[in-house]
Amino acid sequence: MVEIDEELENRIGEVTRKTKEMGIPVMILIEGAPASGKSRLSNALYMALDAKYTDFVATRPPRELDLRYPFLQRYWQHLPKDGDINIHFRSWYSQYIEYKVRGIRENIKVDYEEIKDDMENFEDTLMNNGYEIIKFYVHADEDIKQAHIDKLQGNPVLKWKAEEFQGRLENFDYEGEMEQFLKGSSKCPWTKIDFEEKEEAVNSLFETVIDRLEKRIESGRNTEDAEADGYFSENYEAQLFKFDFEKEKIKKKEYKKILPGLQERMREIQFQLYEEKIPLVLVYEGMDAAGKGGNIERTRQLLDPTGYTVNATGAPTDMERAHHYLWRFATEVPRSGHIGFFDRSWYGRVLVERIEGFAENKEWKRSYREIKDFEKSLYDSGAIIVKFFLSLDKDEQLERFQDRQNDEDKAWKLTDEDWRNREKWDLYIEASEDMIRETSTERAPWYIIPGNDKRYARITALRKIIEACEARLNDK
Amino acid sequence: MVEIDEELENRIGEVTRKTKEMGIPVMILIEGAPASGKSRLSNALYMALDAKYTDFVATRPPRELDLRYPFLQRYWQHLPKDGDINIHFRSWYSQYIEYKVRGIRENIKVDYEEIKDDMENFEDTLMNNGYEIIKFYVHADEDIKQAHIDKLQGNPVLKWKAEEFQGRLENFDYEGEMEQFLKGSSKCPWTKIDFEEKEEAVNSLFETVIDRLEKRIESGRNTEDAEADGYFSENYEAQLFKFDFEKEKIKKKEYKKILPGLQERMREIQFQLYEEKIPLVLVYEGMDAAGKGGNIERTRQLLDPTGYTVNATGAPTDMERAHHYLWRFATEVPRSGHIGFFDRSWYGRVLVERIEGFAENKEWKRSYREIKDFEKSLYDSGAIIVKFFLSLDKDEQLERFQDRQNDEDKAWKLTDEDWRNREKWDLYIEASEDMIRETSTERAPWYIIPGNDKRYARITALRKIIEACEARLNDK
Repeated sequence: MVEIDEELENRIGEVTRKTKEMGIPVMILIEGAPASGKSRLSNALYMALDAKYTDFVATRPPRELDLRYPFLQRYWQHLPKDGDINIHFRSWYSQYIEYKVRGIRENIKVDYEEIKDDMENFEDTLMNNGYEIIKFYVHADEDIKQAHIDKLQGNPVLKWKAEEFQGRLENFDYEGEMEQFLKGSSKCPWTKIDFEEKEEAVNSLFETVIDRLEKRIESGRNTEDAEADGYFSENYEAQLFKFDFEKEKIKKKEYKKILPGLQERMREIQFQLYEEKIPLVLVYEGMDAAGKGGNIERTRQLLDPTGYTVNATGAPTDMERAHHYLWRFATEVPRSGHIGFFDRSWYGRVLVERIEGFAENKEWKRSYREIKDFEKSLYDSGAIIVKFFLSLDKDEQLERFQDRQNDEDKAWKLTDEDWRNREKWDLYIEASEDMIRETSTERAPWYIIPGNDKRYARITALRKIIEACEARLNDK
Repeated sequence: MVEIDEELENRIGEVTRKTKEMGIPVMILIEGAPASGKSRLSNALYMALDAKYTDFVATRPPRELDLRYPFLQRYWQHLPKDGDINIHFRSWYSQYIEYKVRGIRENIKVDYEEIKDDMENFEDTLMNNGYEIIKFYVHADEDIKQAHIDKLQGNPVLKWKAEEFQGRLENFDYEGEMEQFLKGSSKCPWTKIDFEEKEEAVNSLFETVIDRLEKRIESGRNTEDAEADGYFSENYEAQLFKFDFEKEKIKKKEYKKILPGLQERMREIQFQLYEEKIPLVLVYEGMDAAGKGGNIERTRQLLDPTGYTVNATGAPTDMERAHHYLWRFATEVPRSGHIGFFDRSWYGRVLVERIEGFAENKEWKRSYREIKDFEKSLYDSGAIIVKFFLSLDKDEQLERFQDRQNDEDKAWKLTDEDWRNREKWDLYIEASEDMIRETSTERAPWYIIPGNDKRYARITALRKIIEACEARLNDK
């Protein structure tokens, strides 16, 4: 029976109770070739940590359903919340190798250099937001791996496991593929563990974890104070949101003539995307009462409800607050062939969170890049992304607020918060325009739609979606 | 374009805002043969409800991974939280028919009469706990279904959908199978919707939902006041927990000789269960400091960590509190071939919740049956279930508390709550003994293990687990 150094066990308990208390989320990656001792090491680690806040996350060979989600989605899904610890038995690195070597991404051409980028961005984003990532690479010499396999081979009950190891070792050169990552200049370094003898390997793994966490405890969690002003101009004037609203109108008769055809086409497109396994991500932002809900409604009217979801974004729950701000959205992205509507979205980070000071200045500023990286990772996994900003003018908003107030069936839609937001009209304009300038990309463009005329806005959005989808479908 | 009655739309909005406010969880089931109009109806419903608290849950034909979980697990997973609404597009009824007709349950002999039982128990459990379940069965005459298919057939883009419908209609007699349920005497009745013309069908569906929810709003959520005493005896004396602790001991030398062999055997069994795709559920209850954690540790020592999880049960989070009490456990049950350790479990309902008055008397009393039903549903899906109660005497507990207090590496384990629980010793004894009497079944037996001697308790539990698994493995 292996005896783990009791002192190390006590110390790892102590530091992880401390990181729990401080709310530091920790991700410990354990990579290594088949039969190199990963299981034994990670079991020792799993046993030493408090099961109340430790998750053991194994990256299995992907199943059909896994392949229908963006490359990083599984890891978003399992992201530890503040103070929790993940042991990643194999991680996105193993997944990268499996996907690439097996060539099993479904029907989309994957650029693996881009995926590598996305992996690095993912780590950066997490580290910048206070996640502690500790990476181990377990190495064992050939004879040690072989001895382990032979031992399993000798037991009739465990024989199949030996054969699985053998198969994995022969079928792809895991170690060769890993080299590029081990040599890479990632900001998050690897610690190599030589597995000769279990006790020693475990102790060395524990020591590294303790060391890293002790340093981290000392430097603490991000602690910049929120600055109150959020960098706003004195008297900001709309620059992007300047329209001749009189021109952007569609008459009711024309609207009734055009709409059904577009809705029919949208329905066809849903089925085509489904067949081609392309996910479609639709983002709707805009002022209160700009007509986001009604716009989405016209688009989904004839769709098959088993193939789309509407995600309406409210204030975050406690659980959502205890995760990275992208978590609650990343876990809701549509799988391939499905459509995800986002009625408000991750852009809340640089709108309401900036304006209300919920995010610190350096946080929301950094988010422009994080959001672009996130959207890039969706794009790299095959998604079409279309983002709408529905803009209306201040008088029109007031009129709609008053309409709601006076109609008992709509009064519930209007809250005190809407009035409070209205008082900050200029701040919203500035933040929204900054956002559009910073985050409109070829992969995920913004469309600013003048929304004073609801009919015009609905027809325009529908047309843009159809256009974007047709471009991709014809490109195949 | 179909026009939904605006008044009905307003009213359904109104009642669901009210159920949201009252915290009533609502599940709306929409069953019906392929091409009968389910999609169109449920899309109309989905659009009329507030996306902020409505989920659209489609029961797809099962994937390999689905088949590795208990029959009802998907529905536990998606259970709405208080105030939320699920639209179940197809439900456990469709799943039952698919599973049965296709005969695709993995390698275990499924008794479909038992599964039917489990479905009814599931509904009962939810309804007793305040869930509102509204079931629709959509019927369309043959010519209407055919007309719908023909229309799809005529569009090159939608043709494959027509073929899918045709295939599903021909491959199994959904309507014939559903008859037993429609005729059945379930406490939760079906509403039949005749689909001739969409508008009329939608209106009739909306009316039923409004009607059911209005009645429900009137009768309110369960409102029995918690009674403080929880039905405890004046001076309860242990009846099941009477041991001659002096006899139940294992010497250190003997322990060191026996343990490694049992651990090796446990490891083999893990692999055998994996091969046979049998899930193993291990529950550990017992007094504070009874040695549950250490016991589990000895059992998992040589296991492959990718094949087991340890679920340590703490106080429920807000999200867990907003769900049925079984939810957080039901979503953590191991998939086939895996082992789930529960360090404390769903039995908290009839222990701490009873003693502290967190559950009303009628609630925890009802839970004995609900828990047995829940365990039966796991068993019916192939699980081996073994439950341990580690019992120690009051003096031994005090000694262990004091040890912890005096050892700086263990002091964190002892909390004020432990001392408070100790003051309620007799209540815990009575509640625990009641629990064991009420919930020990052949499918999921309790083993009471005298825990004054840790070595004895560990060896005994390991042996029991091995015995239970061998019995099943040999029975195959």
